[in-house]
Amino acid sequence: MFDRVLVANRGEIAIRIMKACQELDIETVAVYSDADENAKHVRFADEAKHIGASKAKESYLDQEALLNAGLDADADAIHPGYGFLVESEEFAAYVEKSACTWVGPPSEVMGAFGEKTRARDIMTNADVPVVPGTTKAVTDAEEVHAFGNERGYPVAIKAAGGGGGRGFRIVEEPEEAESQLRDASREADAYFDDPDVYLERFLEDPKHIEVQILADEHGNVRHFGERDCSIQRRQQKLVEESPSPVLDEETREEICDAACRGAAAADYVNAGTVEFLYEDDEFYFIETNARIQVEHPVTELRTGVDLVKWQLRIAAGEELDFAQEDVDTHAAAMEFRINAEDPENDFTPLPGTLSTYDPPRGIGIRVDDGVDEDDTIAPFYDSMFAKFVVYGEDREEVLARARRVLDEATIEGIPTTIPFHRDLLEDDVFLENRHTTKYVDRMRDNDET
Amino acid sequence: MFDRVLVANRGEIAIRIMKACQELDIETVAVYSDADENAKHVRFADEAKHIGASKAKESYLDQEALLNAGLDADADAIHPGYGFLVESEEFAAYVEKSACTWVGPPSEVMGAFGEKTRARDIMTNADVPVVPGTTKAVTDAEEVHAFGNERGYPVAIKAAGGGGGRGFRIVEEPEEAESQLRDASREADAYFDDPDVYLERFLEDPKHIEVQILADEHGNVRHFGERDCSIQRRQQKLVEESPSPVLDEETREEICDAACRGAAAADYVNAGTVEFLYEDDEFYFIETNARIQVEHPVTELRTGVDLVKWQLRIAAGEELDFAQEDVDTHAAAMEFRINAEDPENDFTPLPGTLSTYDPPRGIGIRVDDGVDEDDTIAPFYDSMFAKFVVYGEDREEVLARARRVLDEATIEGIPTTIPFHRDLLEDDVFLENRHTTKYVDRMRDNDET
Repeated sequence: MFDRVLVANRGEIAIRIMKACQELDIETVAVYSDADENAKHVRFADEAKHIGASKAKESYLDQEALLNAGLDADADAIHPGYGFLVESEEFAAYVEKSACTWVGPPSEVMGAFGEKTRARDIMTNADVPVVPGTTKAVTDAEEVHAFGNERGYPVAIKAAGGGGGRGFRIVEEPEEAESQLRDASREADAYFDDPDVYLERFLEDPKHIEVQILADEHGNVRHFGERDCSIQRRQQKLVEESPSPVLDEETREEICDAACRGAAAADYVNAGTVEFLYEDDEFYFIETNARIQVEHPVTELRTGVDLVKWQLRIAAGEELDFAQEDVDTHAAAMEFRINAEDPENDFTPLPGTLSTYDPPRGIGIRVDDGVDEDDTIAPFYDSMFAKFVVYGEDREEVLARARRVLDEATIEGIPTTIPFHRDLLEDDVFLENRHTTKYVDRMRDNDET
Repeated sequence: MFDRVLVANRGEIAIRIMKACQELDIETVAVYSDADENAKHVRFADEAKHIGASKAKESYLDQEALLNAGLDADADAIHPGYGFLVESEEFAAYVEKSACTWVGPPSEVMGAFGEKTRARDIMTNADVPVVPGTTKAVTDAEEVHAFGNERGYPVAIKAAGGGGGRGFRIVEEPEEAESQLRDASREADAYFDDPDVYLERFLEDPKHIEVQILADEHGNVRHFGERDCSIQRRQQKLVEESPSPVLDEETREEICDAACRGAAAADYVNAGTVEFLYEDDEFYFIETNARIQVEHPVTELRTGVDLVKWQLRIAAGEELDFAQEDVDTHAAAMEFRINAEDPENDFTPLPGTLSTYDPPRGIGIRVDDGVDEDDTIAPFYDSMFAKFVVYGEDREEVLARARRVLDEATIEGIPTTIPFHRDLLEDDVFLENRHTTKYVDRMRDNDET
C-alpha cells in the first residue's frame, strides 16, 4: 500500500479521501490555492502544498503545479477526487509517466470513455443499449436535420469530450439546429478543450439511473447496485437515492449486468459509474464517469463497502477479494446536496461565512463535508459544501428521517439548498416517484410564470 | 400511533427517543430539573415541563412529578429511557393505571425480571443455562460458607432487586462473608429499596455477551444478534461491540435462541436485553434488562432496525411484521462511551462546560449525544454525554476507523474518556480479543502498583 498520497482536490471530497487514507495508515498531502489557505482540507492533512492563485485554472487545474506538489512531498500516489482534472486523460497520462501512481482508471480507458462516441461504440459492442445517436462528430446543421427527420425532434446535441451538462443543447425545431450546434461546440471547446459534438435522440422525460462499479487490474468487475439521480436542476444532481424506486428486480439485474459488461469490455480499472437514462421501461447507456462521484456515499451506506479505500487498494494492485454474490445491498439511502445557493433566487451561489454550522447527528445520518463553523465558502469553486446522506430500512423511513434531519441542522450566515429539500419532501410527485430528470426545472418554471 | 409522548429522561437518550418520535410524527414533551433548564433535550422537544430540583430524587426519580407532567401535557404515552425509573416496577404500574401508556414491558414482567432469583427460575425452566447459585435471598454468612464449600470461592453476592454492579460484592475467603453480605445488602437497599441478595458462583474471567430482543403483545419474539460488552471498568461498560469476536456461529445461534426462549417464557413484551457471561465456551444467563440500553445503536447499525421506534410501535399494539430470518445482521459496529471523566485520575467525573464540541463526521460514524457546544455538563447525573458508534465491514475496519474518528473529534473544556479509548485501540489484548470483563480493572490496578 502507498505511504503518502497527494489529494489533488479540495472541499468535502478531499477530506473524504484523507479519511480513507488515515484508515489505511497512509499519510496525506493536501494542495491549496490562495483562497483555500485556511480551508478545512488543509487543516485535515498531514502536510499541505500551496499550488497557486485562487482561480481554479491557476491552481486546482494546473497539472504541473499538482504533480510537482506530489513529487515535492514525496507522495507515491495522486488521488484526483471528482471535478477539476479528474476526467483529464492528459493529466492521468502525465501522472502515469511520473513516479506517482494515478488513483483512477488508466489514461487510455479514460480516453475511450471521455470520447462519448467511442464510449457508445464500446457499449454497443458489449450489447449494452445506447440512446440512438450518431457515432461520430457532427459539424453541419444538415446532419441535425437528417437525424431529426429520421428519429424525430427534439434532438440532443452533446459534447464528445465530457459530460455534466456542459456542451449540451436541445434542438426543438429544425431552424434552431445551426445556432444550438454552434453554442454547444463552443461550450464543449471551452470546458473540455474539444469542440466535437454528436447527436442523440432526446428522451423527453427519463429517469437518471446509474450503476456503481469497481474493477481491478486482474479482470474482476463488481457492481454495487444502482442510484436514482432523477432530481436534477439544469442537469445538476440535487438528490440521489438507492434503490431506485421505479426498477423491478429483473430490470435492476439487467442494468447492473449491462454496466459490468460494458466496463469489462473496456478493460476498465478502478471505481466508475455507468450512467443510463430510463424511460418507458427501457434503459439506455449515456456515459461512464471514470471517477468517484459526489453521490458515492449512497452506495456505501447500502453495501457497507468503502469505495474510496477500494480506489486506493485497486491503484496499489490489490484484487477485489469478494464475489458479486457477496455484495449485500440492503436498506435505502438518499443524499441531499447542501449548496451555498439561494433556492428562492434561482439557486444563485451566495458564498460567505458559516457563522453557525451544526450538522445533524444520530441514527440514520451520514454527513460528509468540507467545512467547520466559522469557515468561509470561497466564490471560486463548487458551491456544495456538505452532503447529508440519510439511510433507513426503506424509502418511507428515509423520507421521514430526512424531514427530521433537515429540521435538526442549523446553518447560518449563508443561504443553502435545505429549503428546496424540505419542499421536495412534501412534494407528492417526488414522494410517489413520478418525477423525472425534467421535474425540478418544470416545477420551477411553472412557479415563475 | 401515539400523538404525544412524554420522555421521562434527559441527555442523549431523551434526544434519541425524541428523534424516533419525530420520525413517527409524534409530538414530544421533555421534562427537566432545575439544573437542566437550558439542556439540549429541553430545546429539542416540542414542549418541556419542569419537574423539580436538580437532585435526581427530586426530579427524574419523582414518579408523581413525572406522571403529572405527562397528564398535564396531554401525553398519551411515557417513555422512560434508561436509568432513573426505567427498572421500577412500581413506576411502570403507576403509569399503567393512568391515562398514559407505559413504553416498556408490563410491570408484572418487570417485576419477574427485577427479582433476580425469579428471573433465574424463569430461565432455568426455559432451558437457559444460569450461573449456579441460590434460588432465594440469603441473609446469613453460614449460607455463604456452605455455598463456597460446595462450589468453591470466590462467591458472588448480588442484589435481587437490580443490576448494574450495585449491591454486588465478591467473597474471596470465608471470613469476608459476613461483612460483604452486610455491605451488599445495605447497597441493594439504598439503590433498589430491596435489601435481598443472593449468591452465585463467581466466574473468574468471563466475557459479557448480551442479546437484543424485541417482543410484541401478539406472542412474537425476535432477536437482533449479540453484543460483546467485555470492556468494563468496575462493572460499568465502556466499549461495546457486535459481533462478539469470540463466538462461533453455532454458539451465536444457541445464545440468541436461548434469549428468545427465556423472553417468550416470561411473556416478555417490548425491547429487552438478555445478558450472559461467557467463559470456557459456556454461557450463563445473568439478568434481563427490561429497557432500551445505552449500547442499542451497535445493534441498530448492524441490522438497520430502529429499536426505539419499535418500542413505541409495540407499546401502541403493533405486531413485529418480519420473521426472524428476515433480520439481516451484517458488518461490525463498536460503541465508545464519551464520559466527562478523567481516565488519568481514576475516571473521576469532572463536569464543566464544553467550550469546544466538534464530534466526528463522515463514513462509518454515528454520534448520539445530549449536548451542543457551550453546553454545561451538570454534576448531578450520569457523566456520559455522547456515544461514538463506529461501523465498518469487519472488526479490523472498525478499529482503523475508530482510531481515525477519535483523532478527528475535538472536545475542549472538560476531560473525557477519549484518551482511554485511544489507548485501548493500541492494546494488544483488546485487539486480539483476549480481554474479559476483568481486563480494564486489572490493567489499571497494575498501572497503579
